[in-house]
Amino acid sequence: MEKIIAKARVLIEALPYMKKFWGSVFVIKYGGSAMTDRKFKEVFMEDIALLKYTGVKVVIVHGGGDDISALAEKLGKKPVFVDGHRVTDEGMLEIVEMVLVGKVNKDIVKSINAHGVKAVGISGKDANLIIAKKKLHKGRDIGAVGEVVRINPEILSVLDGRNFVPVIAPLGVDAWGNGYNINADSAAAEIAAALKADKLIYVTDTDGVKIKNKYVSSLNSAGIKRNIKAGQIKGGMLPKVNSAIKAVRAGVKKVHIINGTIEHSLLLEIFTREGVGTEIIK
Amino acid sequence: MEKIIAKARVLIEALPYMKKFWGSVFVIKYGGSAMTDRKFKEVFMEDIALLKYTGVKVVIVHGGGDDISALAEKLGKKPVFVDGHRVTDEGMLEIVEMVLVGKVNKDIVKSINAHGVKAVGISGKDANLIIAKKKLHKGRDIGAVGEVVRINPEILSVLDGRNFVPVIAPLGVDAWGNGYNINADSAAAEIAAALKADKLIYVTDTDGVKIKNKYVSSLNSAGIKRNIKAGQIKGGMLPKVNSAIKAVRAGVKKVHIINGTIEHSLLLEIFTREGVGTEIIK
Amino acid sequence: MEKIIAKARVLIEALPYMKKFWGSVFVIKYGGSAMTDRKFKEVFMEDIALLKYTGVKVVIVHGGGDDISALAEKLGKKPVFVDGHRVTDEGMLEIVEMVLVGKVNKDIVKSINAHGVKAVGISGKDANLIIAKKKLHKGRDIGAVGEVVRINPEILSVLDGRNFVPVIAPLGVDAWGNGYNINADSAAAEIAAALKADKLIYVTDTDGVKIKNKYVSSLNSAGIKRNIKAGQIKGGMLPKVNSAIKAVRAGVKKVHIINGTIEHSLLLEIFTREGVGTEIIK
Amino acid sequence: MEKIIAKARVLIEALPYMKKFWGSVFVIKYGGSAMTDRKFKEVFMEDIALLKYTGVKVVIVHGGGDDISALAEKLGKKPVFVDGHRVTDEGMLEIVEMVLVGKVNKDIVKSINAHGVKAVGISGKDANLIIAKKKLHKGRDIGAVGEVVRINPEILSVLDGRNFVPVIAPLGVDAWGNGYNINADSAAAEIAAALKADKLIYVTDTDGVKIKNKYVSSLNSAGIKRNIKAGQIKGGMLPKVNSAIKAVRAGVKKVHIINGTIEHSLLLEIFTREGVGTEIIK
Amino acid sequence: MEKIIAKARVLIEALPYMKKFWGSVFVIKYGGSAMTDRKFKEVFMEDIALLKYTGVKVVIVHGGGDDISALAEKLGKKPVFVDGHRVTDEGMLEIVEMVLVGKVNKDIVKSINAHGVKAVGISGKDANLIIAKKKLHKGRDIGAVGEVVRINPEILSVLDGRNFVPVIAPLGVDAWGNGYNINADSAAAEIAAALKADKLIYVTDTDGVKIKNKYVSSLNSAGIKRNIKAGQIKGGMLPKVNSAIKAVRAGVKKVHIINGTIEHSLLLEIFTREGVGTEIIK
Amino acid sequence: MEKIIAKARVLIEALPYMKKFWGSVFVIKYGGSAMTDRKFKEVFMEDIALLKYTGVKVVIVHGGGDDISALAEKLGKKPVFVDGHRVTDEGMLEIVEMVLVGKVNKDIVKSINAHGVKAVGISGKDANLIIAKKKLHKGRDIGAVGEVVRINPEILSVLDGRNFVPVIAPLGVDAWGNGYNINADSAAAEIAAALKADKLIYVTDTDGVKIKNKYVSSLNSAGIKRNIKAGQIKGGMLPKVNSAIKAVRAGVKKVHIINGTIEHSLLLEIFTREGVGTEIIK
Repeated sequence: MEKIIAKARVLIEALPYMKKFWGSVFVIKYGGSAMTDRKFKEVFMEDIALLKYTGVKVVIVHGGGDDISALAEKLGKKPVFVDGHRVTDEGMLEIVEMVLVGKVNKDIVKSINAHGVKAVGISGKDANLIIAKKKLHKGRDIGAVGEVVRINPEILSVLDGRNFVPVIAPLGVDAWGNGYNINADSAAAEIAAALKADKLIYVTDTDGVKIKNKYVSSLNSAGIKRNIKAGQIKGGMLPKVNSAIKAVRAGVKKVHIINGTIEHSLLLEIFTREGVGTEIIK
Repeated sequence: MEKIIAKARVLIEALPYMKKFWGSVFVIKYGGSAMTDRKFKEVFMEDIALLKYTGVKVVIVHGGGDDISALAEKLGKKPVFVDGHRVTDEGMLEIVEMVLVGKVNKDIVKSINAHGVKAVGISGKDANLIIAKKKLHKGRDIGAVGEVVRINPEILSVLDGRNFVPVIAPLGVDAWGNGYNINADSAAAEIAAALKADKLIYVTDTDGVKIKNKYVSSLNSAGIKRNIKAGQIKGGMLPKVNSAIKAVRAGVKKVHIINGTIEHSLLLEIFTREGVGTEIIK
Repeated sequence: MEKIIAKARVLIEALPYMKKFWGSVFVIKYGGSAMTDRKFKEVFMEDIALLKYTGVKVVIVHGGGDDISALAEKLGKKPVFVDGHRVTDEGMLEIVEMVLVGKVNKDIVKSINAHGVKAVGISGKDANLIIAKKKLHKGRDIGAVGEVVRINPEILSVLDGRNFVPVIAPLGVDAWGNGYNINADSAAAEIAAALKADKLIYVTDTDGVKIKNKYVSSLNSAGIKRNIKAGQIKGGMLPKVNSAIKAVRAGVKKVHIINGTIEHSLLLEIFTREGVGTEIIK
Repeated sequence: MEKIIAKARVLIEALPYMKKFWGSVFVIKYGGSAMTDRKFKEVFMEDIALLKYTGVKVVIVHGGGDDISALAEKLGKKPVFVDGHRVTDEGMLEIVEMVLVGKVNKDIVKSINAHGVKAVGISGKDANLIIAKKKLHKGRDIGAVGEVVRINPEILSVLDGRNFVPVIAPLGVDAWGNGYNINADSAAAEIAAALKADKLIYVTDTDGVKIKNKYVSSLNSAGIKRNIKAGQIKGGMLPKVNSAIKAVRAGVKKVHIINGTIEHSLLLEIFTREGVGTEIIK
Repeated sequence: MEKIIAKARVLIEALPYMKKFWGSVFVIKYGGSAMTDRKFKEVFMEDIALLKYTGVKVVIVHGGGDDISALAEKLGKKPVFVDGHRVTDEGMLEIVEMVLVGKVNKDIVKSINAHGVKAVGISGKDANLIIAKKKLHKGRDIGAVGEVVRINPEILSVLDGRNFVPVIAPLGVDAWGNGYNINADSAAAEIAAALKADKLIYVTDTDGVKIKNKYVSSLNSAGIKRNIKAGQIKGGMLPKVNSAIKAVRAGVKKVHIINGTIEHSLLLEIFTREGVGTEIIK
Repeated sequence: MEKIIAKARVLIEALPYMKKFWGSVFVIKYGGSAMTDRKFKEVFMEDIALLKYTGVKVVIVHGGGDDISALAEKLGKKPVFVDGHRVTDEGMLEIVEMVLVGKVNKDIVKSINAHGVKAVGISGKDANLIIAKKKLHKGRDIGAVGEVVRINPEILSVLDGRNFVPVIAPLGVDAWGNGYNINADSAAAEIAAALKADKLIYVTDTDGVKIKNKYVSSLNSAGIKRNIKAGQIKGGMLPKVNSAIKAVRAGVKKVHIINGTIEHSLLLEIFTREGVGTEIIK
């Protein structure tokens, strides 16, 4: 009996966080191994369901890197990257869209639905959710790579109003109907900003932001900038922290970078005293 | 880290129950040591808050035995009981009302409010919630002891619509304004029936219904009647099981009798595989 | 026939006042003989019902002086007053709460319900309606006597939305759950201010404010202050007029002090040309 | 003071009727001297305002007899009647419409508005309120005299939803756009039936239905039929009582025939013990 | 087949205008031959129906000149005009009201209803829509001729909320219930201003504003003033252009003056590239 | 001028159809050359926009045949068909989903959005819209080919409530998360049935149903069955007519089979007297 009472105590430990986050908006960027590894995926879906059933309004934005390159190669197209940006000609954009929307997005939707939560997968083209424009890289045209011009969040509020979880593939569209491949970290930050989200959570393959070889649990904008200058934050972490700074400045309360390959890291961050990963505040 | 992951697993174990009970109505009869002992009380309030934050619509009906007799004696009135029914003359009714509504009810309200949930304490007289009539005991007039004639649940739905938890003192009123002392077990069952509650939960001082000296985990109406006849169910358990039978017949899905002196018994019953106490079904 | 036509003319005389007050909020402080004398009480309840049926939103705040002292004395506790404030130790607070909430409040609720209007009795603890803090009297701790810090009027609008009349016992609560005995005149004024009430009406045992041995029909804040200074307004009238000044400054349109022992004084003030009592404006 | 208290008592005498009729629908047929005599008119408007301010939903249907004939004669058209039905050729219909809608209706609207109630005057053509067909009189075509085929009450509920009082001129229209002159007594009864009104009130120039030279205070359908057969009810009273029978059979609770030339007869009937006129029930 | 495809192309040509005007408010002043000639009338009603079914919120204000004088003369009253203003004594006002409201208004309502759209005819007296005051003409009293003081648009939004088309007779009322004859051009402009209409359209007997003997397709306020000064705009066109200037200054986007005797001129102006008539902008 | 008036007449010819279909639900199966040929596509999008702007609630279900086979062949998978059903192993299902959802669906969404209407593309997996099960073909397992078990239309009503046009890729899902390729004709019919649509319209490459070498303009269920038996209806037309029969039996009012390669055939069918294609009724 003592053992099952211990279970109840854990639920009660979560209570203050439930109170705090009931009715809050969390935008979750979902990517990396947490998304591709079957085991971590299952656990992530449980966490999403739990968030939803404790009153959090969840919006998911996903990436899709490896699957895109895999299909491209099968079709004889060699992926080309410039400083981490995928050079996206018309044929490649078609591949990106097919994989992101037709495969990755629907796979996530299916998995969430299987956990008793109703998900609806859309792309940034649907309801003109993500209005974008071409992004030049150091003045160079790298194809249909876009940056966000404006978010039209109406469709998100419509879905939320009936408790559907929106799952968003990061594609954009401009006024002439041209499609764009958008960086998922950046899309998530812009959507979080448009929704004035309470939290923007990056689910990654790493334990957070590392500075001088140690993971730090909290950073603010100034600290991030200093550490970028000092060369302590770099590589794939740069778009995340830069998006994070944009988000907190636009009104998002907190950004978290957590490790999706730690079981239930999402819940741990949200519902326990200890927390995990790095949090970024204004 | 493994330890905190274990916590998350417990939350996840609760997930199927959250899904099941989200939006459900639970009427909880609160009494006995769980109500009077400060330690059990604190734990009960946490459980109520957790239920509320996981989407359960909670209605509380309370008793108040000991405090009533204590005040009566201080005032020089000797409590008289006939087969467990308090003989209630006019002076005694005033004492019952003052203690139930002015002391016990407000004390519960205050404790729930302190846990971040908004409670509103009312009696069966407010908004004519409990319409009652005089109850004779074996043909004998034992004063202002009433039985429920009709529940007017409008005020409960008004309060629920804004997420207030109603806390109800079991007093009744008739068309001429006469007040009645109502058995709390019976009042809770009638309210649960009027609301077509998903669960009616008796929080008591005992581990459930004992038959042949063993607590049984499940009973149905037929089983209860057979065991009453056989003398296996008796005493203070009788009004509970009889009310339970009435409730399940009127559409309440399940009735539970649980021990409020086991820490978090309410949560254990609802959110874990194991369950506790006795459940009664149709 | 001429006699019954005269009746209709009286109804018609009330018409301009009905137009004026339809949809208005009146906070009525109910106390004194009007509350304790059975005859005046009956008439008061009729007046409340009439107000309600002509579209006025009525909120009642009641006192309870004599009953409290009576019970205290029965229980062997001697009431102690310091300049009109009841010294309230823990035992006394329990008595205050039991009498106000369990007896006086429910008695008013029952009487209103008996006149075809739906009343719901609550205290300042319910839904955290009255947040209070300890009030020192001339620097001296006189126990659980409180002053209002903030009104949370949500529960009042919820009840009004369905045409329930809130009947409020003037108890307060602080963030730690401590209870306070609040002066009913002051509680009524604060509630009227929070609701931006059209009228705050003190139902008393006197014909209004007496200045130089004559009742005056109208006063403003400046006039009150001048007369307090001049010693013309004093004693039990002081908390009323001081509360009244606060209320009109906070946006209440008019405050009335009327004599509840004049039959239908409430109606007369509101629905006839003549008016009764003293009105206080900004 | 005693005199003004007497006024309050009159208001209180009205209270049970206010309770009873709050939210009720009254269709009032307004005609005769009550409509044309300035003094009675003023009093009638006050009564309408009082009904409205005590929560009654009022719908007015008016006639217009004398004004129509007056204009017709000025224009050189001689009014022709067959058994009380106005023979209505095209020119006469135009006169009927101009007088009913352009003069009588707007005059009533203006008078009600002047009493602080918002009235909107429409005819049976607006929003296709009264769908009619040609009525033959004893097989003979008497022109654009119509009988009601169907009421489309949508516009009435739209107006009521914002507290506008509909004032209706009894014209009808058929599917081809042909206009019809409808008997106002009959139109009022059909509208009352369509609205399942609580009361249909005929404001006339007589004290009610006279049988054997005495006004009777109450009649039912059977009684009316018997008295028609016996020749006790006849003439201008026939369309009223026949319409009344239709109305009570269609669900109208009571029909009243009252004398609009008795001051405040409308209020007296509704708000006093005594009542006036004849009431007709099923 | 080619011929019917050409039809579809016309529908498609209208599409950009449908998008543009969906949900817009158009106030249409309806008068002249377009109103009196049966053929033009029929076509106008079709146009109104089409506007309504493509999502435009239509409000109609009508005039009634010839009919008024015709009835006046039949009744032996000689119409007197001073600079185009009808001298309106009491008898004349009655005639104006009877004709405008009882004849012209109901005739329009009936015609619209016959086209599957629900119209409700009201005057400026109903719901106090048009509050007016006496208008002196060059300091001279010319009777019940009014100018608009204030529009109370509530009734218009109530009707629009259920898709009723309001048809308005330009009568006004003051606080004492006095009626006024209002210039229909001016009433339409004031109503358009009160509704912040997207378009105010004058349906007239002329192709627009003529300057130097040529119809101009577009004018702004400054241009109008210059041309009035220069004597290029004069006569019956003056009240229209002056009202138009008022309207665009008050927030109406565009005013159009079109010829109602050109078949479907209303549709042509709104749904085709070519446009007709004169448009007036700020 | 005469020419532009002719345009207006065409608009007016459409008016009775606008009245008839305002607020109606049309489910449109979109496929064949109408979908793949750029010219026909552009015209189709205009037609959809016009329907939407005249108040029709449009739901689009699309196919995607050629693109699927094209990608499959590029990836070295040879499409295999059994009696017109695509044999769908796991690899092929992935290709089907990527093409349908990631390419065809988003392309339609983008094109509709470009015409000023807000479209949202979803698949049958989103919000569990299409619950399916494996379909055996003559007892033989042909892979992930599904038939519809149940439609969950909630997401459609949510989108419609805010005027979004749902564009649906015909994929299904079962309770275990398995995906299915569903015949688009059949999916459209089931969705039309679930919505009790007014019309189900198959946009194809043929002028309708041909019987004895002539296109027939109207057929009922009995006629279809007779003609199938007689071998007059066969091949690719069979799933359409069979789905049509199911749909009209389930409450869809009419089914149309029209030729999407005739310019504006959709509008012609709906908005002109002549109509095109074959209509199928119960």
